[in-house]
Amino acid sequence: MVPVLIKDLLSSKPEGQQVKVCGWVRSVRDSKGLVFIQVNDGSCFSNIQLTFDRNNPSNNANVNNIEETLKKLNTGASVRAIGALIESPASGQAVEVTLENIECLGTCSPEEYPLQKNKMSMEYLRENAHLRARTNTFGAVYRVRNQMAFAVHSFFQERGFQYMNAPEITCSDCEGAGEMFQVTTLSLEKIAEMGVKAGIGGMKVEDAHKIVDYSKDFFGKKASLTVSGQLEAETMATALSRVYTFGPTFRAENSNTPRHLAEFWMIEPEMAFYDLDDNMDIQEDFVKYLLNWALTKCQEDLAFFDKRIQPGLIESLKAVANAKFTRISYTDAIAILEKDAAEGKVKFEYKPFWGCDIATEHERYLTEKVFNGPVMVYNYPKEIKAFYMKLNEDGKTVKAVDVLVPGIGELIGGSEREENYEVLLERIKSLGLEPKDYDWYLDLRRFGTVPHSGFGLGFERLIRYVTGMENIRDVIPFPRAPKLADF
Amino acid sequence: MVPVLIKDLLSSKPEGQQVKVCGWVRSVRDSKGLVFIQVNDGSCFSNIQLTFDRNNPSNNANVNNIEETLKKLNTGASVRAIGALIESPASGQAVEVTLENIECLGTCSPEEYPLQKNKMSMEYLRENAHLRARTNTFGAVYRVRNQMAFAVHSFFQERGFQYMNAPEITCSDCEGAGEMFQVTTLSLEKIAEMGVKAGIGGMKVEDAHKIVDYSKDFFGKKASLTVSGQLEAETMATALSRVYTFGPTFRAENSNTPRHLAEFWMIEPEMAFYDLDDNMDIQEDFVKYLLNWALTKCQEDLAFFDKRIQPGLIESLKAVANAKFTRISYTDAIAILEKDAAEGKVKFEYKPFWGCDIATEHERYLTEKVFNGPVMVYNYPKEIKAFYMKLNEDGKTVKAVDVLVPGIGELIGGSEREENYEVLLERIKSLGLEPKDYDWYLDLRRFGTVPHSGFGLGFERLIRYVTGMENIRDVIPFPRAPKLADF
Repeated sequence: MVPVLIKDLLSSKPEGQQVKVCGWVRSVRDSKGLVFIQVNDGSCFSNIQLTFDRNNPSNNANVNNIEETLKKLNTGASVRAIGALIESPASGQAVEVTLENIECLGTCSPEEYPLQKNKMSMEYLRENAHLRARTNTFGAVYRVRNQMAFAVHSFFQERGFQYMNAPEITCSDCEGAGEMFQVTTLSLEKIAEMGVKAGIGGMKVEDAHKIVDYSKDFFGKKASLTVSGQLEAETMATALSRVYTFGPTFRAENSNTPRHLAEFWMIEPEMAFYDLDDNMDIQEDFVKYLLNWALTKCQEDLAFFDKRIQPGLIESLKAVANAKFTRISYTDAIAILEKDAAEGKVKFEYKPFWGCDIATEHERYLTEKVFNGPVMVYNYPKEIKAFYMKLNEDGKTVKAVDVLVPGIGELIGGSEREENYEVLLERIKSLGLEPKDYDWYLDLRRFGTVPHSGFGLGFERLIRYVTGMENIRDVIPFPRAPKLADF
Repeated sequence: MVPVLIKDLLSSKPEGQQVKVCGWVRSVRDSKGLVFIQVNDGSCFSNIQLTFDRNNPSNNANVNNIEETLKKLNTGASVRAIGALIESPASGQAVEVTLENIECLGTCSPEEYPLQKNKMSMEYLRENAHLRARTNTFGAVYRVRNQMAFAVHSFFQERGFQYMNAPEITCSDCEGAGEMFQVTTLSLEKIAEMGVKAGIGGMKVEDAHKIVDYSKDFFGKKASLTVSGQLEAETMATALSRVYTFGPTFRAENSNTPRHLAEFWMIEPEMAFYDLDDNMDIQEDFVKYLLNWALTKCQEDLAFFDKRIQPGLIESLKAVANAKFTRISYTDAIAILEKDAAEGKVKFEYKPFWGCDIATEHERYLTEKVFNGPVMVYNYPKEIKAFYMKLNEDGKTVKAVDVLVPGIGELIGGSEREENYEVLLERIKSLGLEPKDYDWYLDLRRFGTVPHSGFGLGFERLIRYVTGMENIRDVIPFPRAPKLADF
């Protein structure tokens, strides 16, 4: 009883064979006795057209039933139809279905249906996130998202990587990267109540923290949502050689921007025996693989984005897919930025200097203006990068690399990891971190240490890049951000 | 500079070509001037053997360097070696490498290395979860896990399903399924302090809850970790037709058993236009596909599990992969259980009766003794199943189905969903749930509703089944359970 997907019907040879169509009505047009019903099932961008000629119905047509059903059909209604698949006489589609029978499975009141409006803003659709997959734009976004996810797995599986799941709940904030969400089964209301009772009973305010007893929390200590699976991925890479994570990560940053999510999906590969150059090679291969996958498997959806969302999108993706990525050291990149700023070629909000973070404006200037193509900037000052990155012989820079692409800026961040026990321990201490918190991580350097590298790609950033969608909240089904956790 | 994986070396044609081997030493044997080094890189179960003949070294051998390096090699040390790939004269391996040079990348002190012991318990290895991927058992578990994850994606991609990500953080406890973890950026210590201050200031205990102000929490209201992505998956299936989630889900149940995790990965497909029979068909196809994938792509690892972990494993997986799944209604299943119990054929801890939950002991009796093969039990009493399951015409049962397999019991749970707005609303009300909490979910029935079905498979339960591993904590890299959130 499972229907054939419209995607497959549209690519079938039309030989008048009887087919069953299930989906949702996009539009009904009734013109001089000729009825056209556009039906979509989300399997592809295109609709399939059902036709019913009142003046000349098909011999097999159940005319009365069709007429009765037609009265119930509005945009959004669901149907199950039967008819003959024929070559379409009209332009715009290869095949269509001559209606023999149709059933309305679920009506859709035009007065009440939230997606009836003609022009719906992205904000409005976000408030109706449970229905927005039914629109052209979001159907396309989610299909591209699906293709990109499978492309990620395919890329790594073809190269002998093992998919692994890093933990979501963790008691270690090892990366020290930003604010975390706390996870608890302690009752906040109960804590407040204990506080009030203790206050009445004479507890001093400075003793209040004693009321919070993490030994009674689910995990027996304070637990949070992970900000990165990298350190755990390293434990697996130093056993299985090549691994990758692809899972949700969390940041409790109070950033209400079109570029930040509180919950997002990250891809974090980690490779034993890869140095920084190997790391850059695979990053370049990876980006090109993903873009080529999108360009070949999502043609219809990309054509829509190119036309309606970001003109020039396909050309710009093709350009990166075919480019040789420029590789430039941080020091050289800064020199260019300083020189061009000094010569008045460009005005930056933040003045670039050796030692500064490369801001998005700098990244985009490098990739869009200076090199007009993808750029990999490597060997950053150790002060602005994480403790686990491998120190260069100059003692000043670390083997980090960021991949910058036009229109987005940073797409990937990665590094060769510090595999020397003494150097890593020194880095941990000098940053004021507590070595015993990193005992298990240091073990990887104590026992059979190997050179290794890895990188991280924010999946939603990738989808934003590939679709041209402006707001990151519109490339994930149910976005989470400050004050936003609906559904 | 990226080395060829040992998996690929072992299947290369040995023609004396020079190869580079990178990995970790499993053992070094030195016998009458003949040295054998077993090296593993985790890409497959087998090691590659490096040989060095002191009495007759290869012409290209850097003898002095090899001898120096050999002094540093213990189990767990990491090496980079160069040599000629030749046909192995010994049995047990097809190829080996005649050593020309070898470098120790990282030593591994036998006194300190936690994996030195001969017999290590599963508990001991769990405490060393950051290193256990280096053992035979866990290397095999993680490779099988990787293969099964890719099999899941491949199965659904081949069938036109769209992979989607349901949210991890949610403000709706829609399934009402068990205890949830709270996610917050409010400071528990601060709440305690405010409580103490308020108590000192004269607040009454019954007003203490007012101190907890969720409008100041990150999401502006109380938020939790999801227990299921099903309801969100339904929003996507009623737009894209066929979708599936594969992501982490959470239960804050205080169950310290070998069958429960607080954090586990779930696969939740959801299909528009599928009824209960279609749902059962695809579940059967899915299980067989996964088992066949394991049996063909994980032969070496499964052979290990069959030999060391669960004798008979491969035969039992093959039997299910080739079986026709028995389909039996709950009512008929209970009748069998009651009859066999009454006749003394079996003794149950919990007496079966119509209306009872089918316990694991009942499930296993049905699948292992009565049918000696996989069983699908369908049409359960509505009282013991969730509100969203489609009510049968009898008014008493719902279109739920559980898949039972020998050795495990329930592997999959699913149902056809209630797509009738009125019936669903009635169910919500009669269970004392608040209709307005389900407004968005009801919308799917208000606007173009369609028959649809879905199911859930716990990924770790699958891995336990396929590997024969006894404890679910040993089939995920970093298990989370009560008092357990290390690393």
